[in-house]
Amino acid sequence: MGRERSHDVVFEAQAVSAGRMRNDITVHWPQMGESWQLATDEPPGLGGDSSAPPPLAYIVAGLAGCLMTNIRMMAAHFEVPIEELRVAARAEWERRVTPGAPHRAATRGFLLDIEIDSDAEDATVLRLVEAARDGCFVEDSLTEAVQVSHRLKLGYGWQEL
Amino acid sequence: MGRERSHDVVFEAQAVSAGRMRNDITVHWPQMGESWQLATDEPPGLGGDSSAPPPLAYIVAGLAGCLMTNIRMMAAHFEVPIEELRVAARAEWERRVTPGAPHRAATRGFLLDIEIDSDAEDATVLRLVEAARDGCFVEDSLTEAVQVSHRLKLGYGWQEL
Repeated sequence: MGRERSHDVVFEAQAVSAGRMRNDITVHWPQMGESWQLATDEPPGLGGDSSAPPPLAYIVAGLAGCLMTNIRMMAAHFEVPIEELRVAARAEWERRVTPGAPHRAATRGFLLDIEIDSDAEDATVLRLVEAARDGCFVEDSLTEAVQVSHRLKLGYGWQEL
Repeated sequence: MGRERSHDVVFEAQAVSAGRMRNDITVHWPQMGESWQLATDEPPGLGGDSSAPPPLAYIVAGLAGCLMTNIRMMAAHFEVPIEELRVAARAEWERRVTPGAPHRAATRGFLLDIEIDSDAEDATVLRLVEAARDGCFVEDSLTEAVQVSHRLKLGYGWQEL
């Protein structure tokens, strides 16, 4: 086997608050020259107007979509013909509240049920899915403890948090 | 301070492949009785048709949106008036390739630059943002190593991976 190479995959976004809980977000993928307009909102029960999906809907869709895309890419790589592909996903978080204090977030975990229509043998389908898990950027970001850095603009300039 | 209580926050999704790299995804938030239709695709360079944002665009939007939503919720909690709120986000992954083998995913990290228009003192704004980080479900899911479980339907039934 040859030497491993690494290619950067970079996404950028500019987001601005709009309305009560709505955020308008432009996401760029500079390497591909593509941009998308996305928005998030919250239900009225959380002070929003339900004008767009909540942020957590995007996380669940991003995880399921990433795994499925990788299953198709690995099917091409291993030359395994697959027909329909379905995933049922479940994401569980906890909102922890102590009276008088603001809520805190915790994550219980994610569960993905995968169905692949293929004439290939079970062992081949299994190998395909394991390769897709290793290739899925979102699964890596969730299962590894990754760094989320913040800078906040204050009166005297940018403060690293 | 009173006893801490925990409330479940559960999202479910059903996703089906459609087209070359496209996935059509229905996301439900049962507790709120809301659903959204989302789709993912890839650029032509990756075998897709660019008919929808790629999964990683949803992850970046979900992270930025979640933090911003929490900043607004914490502003309400702490009774700190804020005007406009802007976030610039950057997400960096690596696609690792060894010749002949399928790609593997790695995550470098996420960077969020936060600008808040507020007459409040710097220390108050800082406290607000720190509370928002603790309250952000997406930041928790990324910075903690969380469980992503899979079940794959094989010829003999469901296999846990």
